[in-house]
Amino acid sequence: MFTENPTTPEEDQSANATGSVGLVAPKRHRFIEPLSLACGRILQDYTLVYETYGVLNAQKSNAVLICHALSGHHHAAGRHSPDDKRPGWWDHYIGPGKPIDTNTFFVVAPNNLGGCHGSTGPVSINPDTGKPWGPDFPALRVRDWVHSQARLADLLGIEQWAVVIGGSLGGMQAMRWSLEYPERLRHCVVIASAMKLSAQNIAFNETARQAITSDPDFCEGRYLERKKLPRRGLAVARMIGHITYLSDDGLGRRFGRELRTGSFQQGTEEVEFQIQSYLRHQGDTFSSSFDPNTYILMTRALDFFDLAREYGDDPVAAFANARCRFLLVAFTSDWRFAPQRSREIADALMHANIPVSYAEIESAMGHDAFLLPSERYETLFLAYMQRVAEEMRGCE
Amino acid sequence: MFTENPTTPEEDQSANATGSVGLVAPKRHRFIEPLSLACGRILQDYTLVYETYGVLNAQKSNAVLICHALSGHHHAAGRHSPDDKRPGWWDHYIGPGKPIDTNTFFVVAPNNLGGCHGSTGPVSINPDTGKPWGPDFPALRVRDWVHSQARLADLLGIEQWAVVIGGSLGGMQAMRWSLEYPERLRHCVVIASAMKLSAQNIAFNETARQAITSDPDFCEGRYLERKKLPRRGLAVARMIGHITYLSDDGLGRRFGRELRTGSFQQGTEEVEFQIQSYLRHQGDTFSSSFDPNTYILMTRALDFFDLAREYGDDPVAAFANARCRFLLVAFTSDWRFAPQRSREIADALMHANIPVSYAEIESAMGHDAFLLPSERYETLFLAYMQRVAEEMRGCE
Repeated sequence: MFTENPTTPEEDQSANATGSVGLVAPKRHRFIEPLSLACGRILQDYTLVYETYGVLNAQKSNAVLICHALSGHHHAAGRHSPDDKRPGWWDHYIGPGKPIDTNTFFVVAPNNLGGCHGSTGPVSINPDTGKPWGPDFPALRVRDWVHSQARLADLLGIEQWAVVIGGSLGGMQAMRWSLEYPERLRHCVVIASAMKLSAQNIAFNETARQAITSDPDFCEGRYLERKKLPRRGLAVARMIGHITYLSDDGLGRRFGRELRTGSFQQGTEEVEFQIQSYLRHQGDTFSSSFDPNTYILMTRALDFFDLAREYGDDPVAAFANARCRFLLVAFTSDWRFAPQRSREIADALMHANIPVSYAEIESAMGHDAFLLPSERYETLFLAYMQRVAEEMRGCE
Repeated sequence: MFTENPTTPEEDQSANATGSVGLVAPKRHRFIEPLSLACGRILQDYTLVYETYGVLNAQKSNAVLICHALSGHHHAAGRHSPDDKRPGWWDHYIGPGKPIDTNTFFVVAPNNLGGCHGSTGPVSINPDTGKPWGPDFPALRVRDWVHSQARLADLLGIEQWAVVIGGSLGGMQAMRWSLEYPERLRHCVVIASAMKLSAQNIAFNETARQAITSDPDFCEGRYLERKKLPRRGLAVARMIGHITYLSDDGLGRRFGRELRTGSFQQGTEEVEFQIQSYLRHQGDTFSSSFDPNTYILMTRALDFFDLAREYGDDPVAAFANARCRFLLVAFTSDWRFAPQRSREIADALMHANIPVSYAEIESAMGHDAFLLPSERYETLFLAYMQRVAEEMRGCE
């Protein structure tokens, strides 16, 4: 999963009866114009891997950008082969007849710069050394992703997105789009996000990073060169993240205090509660499919995101630059990106006279709710996107 | 801190004007009667280290037992030497004129069996092997602590405690006392506790244990024999615990998103937010003063505690056995042992016709609030303890 996909097979994007985009294949492009980063460094060239679903219309007015979250990537919908066990990470919301309807929209889902699923990142070769970038990969901020995504839009001939959409860290990218390129999007959908992280959120991210960097196999980030992998540290990091993305209530409903063996084996040190084996499995799976340096890089981008910092810490002043309409969605049991954080965005937008719809969805699934099926969320999301589509047709 | 204190110097328990119990010294006793444990194993003999403050009256009716929490110990109040930087962990609440008034009460504070501050535990020598017990130390349950504390009461000639008091894991011990030895306590004070942990709480504990056991220096628990210490894993475990014992709001008020250097050093990988360096410091400090096997043992006792399991999961049936009065205290921002958990205890007690007072204290300090100064908490705690004292005098 760390190696970049070298082939670009033909795609089968025929929509089928089940509402899937069908078989898809990643595309890739090497950008050779240097990219100046927020940290002051310059990336001489870089590759972005991305997927697209649906067809770009003649007016090029129906493009939707999907910004992914911490552990996401470009494979947002469909399957790479008929025997794929799972579809893309947001397959429930992208496809024919789904909220992000591929019969209407042309959907673009890139893997972010710095990622570990094909776009240039810490696992890529640093041309100056011939070795993996590892810890020398430049620190990235959310705005760097936005700038690189704008280059991707240029490449695809998309002057203006119909909608830029993201959940969590993806929502931060969507908001940043509205300020960096106000004329290049008509709608901004920000799901389960925040204008900046709380101290508690930063604390969880810091603990996750400590788990990774204190693993002796981390080798100060040069594990690839040393043929090592700080698998245990990354597993613990993921376990921390995983608990905090679920709600207490959701965990309780799913696992309660159920015992794996069905009885109390007092005195043994075996795994006993189901939640324990579930978490260990989650940690192990993730640690064999995600790059530790990328996890550090992404969580630091999360920590440093602060929408209004350069606007005198005034979000109203920040959003005064926006020209698009907003949909905000939050989930009642999400305690890492609590509804209060979305309400703050809504308040700032209203005070800046920007049109905004805000929906708070009843859910027991915590932060992960933004990825999961939910009737009310789907209905609402679909209705908003249909309005966008009608607006589009009105302009044709 | 892992080595048992070999000396028992004379104490200076003269109460001073500042409300401190003054200089104190730990006592220790080796119990030679075998102790049958909940896991089915038997501990042939064991040592408990404990401190006492105040004087046991002639009727032996004024004794108060302090049950400590996860990382606590016997040093609950006063100082061990005049130049001690800090007093015992509950010094704010124990001393002359304080809620647990040492002018009135005789206070007993043991280090739990399995601890790492002087009582027999994983760092002690296993007489069968001549090596530290390490991971071979028997698994303990809360009831084992209660039984060993009852032996300590026997030793001190205390037939009935005036009050058994505990916060968090200590509260679980207090509740278990009320069921195991209903005639041996008149009051039970349960602070920021629960009848059983939620799946989320178990998940956090499991992640902390994984951080410890996945540190290569853990050596399957035999680090002492190998002259190693899984310091990094324990530091991460403590960081996880520490965040969750504080509230989002409390962390925000204390640290916000303040930068340590006062400016944004974009692109550097240095510590930047104050919360980060604070957490690292907390983790490092703890990992040089606490035993990893003990941390695992204590968190497992927490996970397995389930007050009503053997009463058909009916807490009312469980508490029907209690004969004491209860004071329950919870703190509004405590999300690991939320007020709802205390209300469940109150409901069960009321349905069992047991006298109970319940106080919910407004606090931004999360679970740690039970250790910290708070006017309302002090006033209420003091009032309850004064009623206990009056009741005691009424019986003289």
